[in-house]
Amino acid sequence: MVASFHEECLERAASLWRAILAHPFLEETAACRIPDAVFANWLKQDYLFVQEGIRFICALAARAPHALRRPLASAIPALEAELDLFAGMAREKQIELEGVRMAPTCHAYVQFLHATAWQASFEEGFTLLYAAEKAYLDSWRRVRDNLAAPSPWQPFIERWAGEEFSRWVAWLEATLDELAAAAGASARERMAEIFLLTARYELRFWEMAYRGEAWPE
Amino acid sequence: MVASFHEECLERAASLWRAILAHPFLEETAACRIPDAVFANWLKQDYLFVQEGIRFICALAARAPHALRRPLASAIPALEAELDLFAGMAREKQIELEGVRMAPTCHAYVQFLHATAWQASFEEGFTLLYAAEKAYLDSWRRVRDNLAAPSPWQPFIERWAGEEFSRWVAWLEATLDELAAAAGASARERMAEIFLLTARYELRFWEMAYRGEAWPE
Amino acid sequence: MVASFHEECLERAASLWRAILAHPFLEETAACRIPDAVFANWLKQDYLFVQEGIRFICALAARAPHALRRPLASAIPALEAELDLFAGMAREKQIELEGVRMAPTCHAYVQFLHATAWQASFEEGFTLLYAAEKAYLDSWRRVRDNLAAPSPWQPFIERWAGEEFSRWVAWLEATLDELAAAAGASARERMAEIFLLTARYELRFWEMAYRGEAWPE
Amino acid sequence: MVASFHEECLERAASLWRAILAHPFLEETAACRIPDAVFANWLKQDYLFVQEGIRFICALAARAPHALRRPLASAIPALEAELDLFAGMAREKQIELEGVRMAPTCHAYVQFLHATAWQASFEEGFTLLYAAEKAYLDSWRRVRDNLAAPSPWQPFIERWAGEEFSRWVAWLEATLDELAAAAGASARERMAEIFLLTARYELRFWEMAYRGEAWPE
Repeated sequence: MVASFHEECLERAASLWRAILAHPFLEETAACRIPDAVFANWLKQDYLFVQEGIRFICALAARAPHALRRPLASAIPALEAELDLFAGMAREKQIELEGVRMAPTCHAYVQFLHATAWQASFEEGFTLLYAAEKAYLDSWRRVRDNLAAPSPWQPFIERWAGEEFSRWVAWLEATLDELAAAAGASARERMAEIFLLTARYELRFWEMAYRGEAWPE
Repeated sequence: MVASFHEECLERAASLWRAILAHPFLEETAACRIPDAVFANWLKQDYLFVQEGIRFICALAARAPHALRRPLASAIPALEAELDLFAGMAREKQIELEGVRMAPTCHAYVQFLHATAWQASFEEGFTLLYAAEKAYLDSWRRVRDNLAAPSPWQPFIERWAGEEFSRWVAWLEATLDELAAAAGASARERMAEIFLLTARYELRFWEMAYRGEAWPE
Repeated sequence: MVASFHEECLERAASLWRAILAHPFLEETAACRIPDAVFANWLKQDYLFVQEGIRFICALAARAPHALRRPLASAIPALEAELDLFAGMAREKQIELEGVRMAPTCHAYVQFLHATAWQASFEEGFTLLYAAEKAYLDSWRRVRDNLAAPSPWQPFIERWAGEEFSRWVAWLEATLDELAAAAGASARERMAEIFLLTARYELRFWEMAYRGEAWPE
Repeated sequence: MVASFHEECLERAASLWRAILAHPFLEETAACRIPDAVFANWLKQDYLFVQEGIRFICALAARAPHALRRPLASAIPALEAELDLFAGMAREKQIELEGVRMAPTCHAYVQFLHATAWQASFEEGFTLLYAAEKAYLDSWRRVRDNLAAPSPWQPFIERWAGEEFSRWVAWLEATLDELAAAAGASARERMAEIFLLTARYELRFWEMAYRGEAWPE
């Protein structure tokens, strides 16, 4: 049986995907022994990332075929609600979100989002979106499945391991397979390369949060 | 007292604005003697225009400062609802929306939206949005104020002469004035030129609907 | 034998293409009886169009695969030289180029260039470029072939009916066929639609020059 | 006396600029003791960077005011010649350019170029260009001024420490100051932030070349 496009991508990214799911950030979060300051690193950077992710989805929706525009744009309010979740958790845990600067990996990943949405083909942008969301679904499901005790970060786990987010990723997956099926061979290869790059950025993002990271001054 | 930027724009576009508000399409709609086929011209073309208008707002939201992103994006579901209104009215009046091709003026106006959102400054794109929405507010208020009898097209009148749309235009207006106040003189002049061009396209759009218009084949 | 993509496009646009080549603007130019003021209309508007055409090619080159970037960008100095040709002819014939405003059809066509280059696929933008250049090659060859006497506008005829321009269009044509062969069926259909739209704008551009055209004020 | 905008930027980036100019990569290149393999790292990555830099300048030229379009686009053939210089040196030193993959910092910097050119204001994109070219001018002049002996990499030193490149940077500098003078305060602040980010990426680029760098697999 022929693999669908998303299966082919996941197969080509298998070692990266394993490294993502086995990352100590996720492992320690599941084991409830991640230091608060380390989790806060991620929370601050991902807050900035999601703000830019909304602009990325807006740019994709601006170029989408009409049949995909409405479902894509429906993610915008969901992501604005995600920002509110970050802000609420930050308040609760006394994490300051104001004046935080993007760390290098976060900045680089965000530039990759925007450059792809604006300059590459719509299909490549869509692939990036699927890869990033799929990585989050799988990562947080891993946390949920291995959870040692009630987590102080429960709302994040529920958000990305939950039903609503899972349906969103399923729609992205099915749509990606359709887009890939309609694309020529070289366009499909460029889409697969975007998938691999996104997986690399996802892995580096956990690493940035776990190790800390700073710009030269 | 110094005029605000939107007042300056309306002042410079005064003769165009008068021509818009006095256009026979609006006059006959208010007098309830516009032929159904003429109104249908407009309905079909504006349906296509709104579809592209959503993509235009998505592109603007993609480039917006964070403080403007959420209010701008909040217009997206409102415009999707507008499309449903068009589709419902079309069904009721047995107007076929499938397979309609954009008339030249509609096509040109849509290209102007996209080219401005993607290539010009964010402030110029925002000016275009204000100008187009302000023209609709004023046009449909004129229809409402002069209405001779209950109109078969009442839901459109209520949509654009109504409270919710009026608040949206008021927000656009206040925000435009802030953007213009922060801009340099030459940037502001380019914004004013976009306003004037948009007024010209608005006038031509009513003309297209009223006279009919076709591409060479 | 299967038609190549550019042949298929020309076939679908056959009646438009005939209307372009038979347009009175070209016919009267060949017969050396086009009024100077009518030719000046075209010269002024096409000067503005070429300025924007350079930006259009820059945007295409920015999105081009590396193998196409260099040949595409090589057209930029050629088009800058074209602008100098316009300016020189305008001086010679005492046509004022300063302060000319784009007529509606010129403005619409320019927006179509930019919107396509920035928002549509690279392949669609490339199709627009081919269609516009091919229309010019065929139009000015028609003028050259039917020329009744030495023309006061000879340098334009030589530019677009000449060898260098012909080689450029041949490269565009061959490259377009390769891009289309690599594209999926629905992408190819969108490219063909861009070709047809470009042909319509080309025809309207001659019409604009011939009849004169103005914005509402 | 009020500092010009480019002076203000260099002042704010002073410690980054010192770190760039004192980077061991440049120091060892000047001392003629940089290992060939280390220099080759840079050469391979900068070759890829320049390819994308051309696309970046094309995108800027596509959005430039007409008066800036021609000088900006004149850099395109100069950069294509730069690519030929890289290819020639690579052949001479038996460095393989085919199949090289962008290292993370190079990829990130390239995304930053494209995202800025397409999505930010023209003025911000122009600032990025100036900052990157100014960093190269100053870096390679430092190498030239400290050169211990004839360098095997002489043509690179001559290219970026030379007269022609110096005139190009002087034009960028004067033009940047004019753009900044015409911009509002918040637009100018965003331009300054782009300058600082570019300086950070420049420093990280030397670091990437000097230490080596790889993606996770």
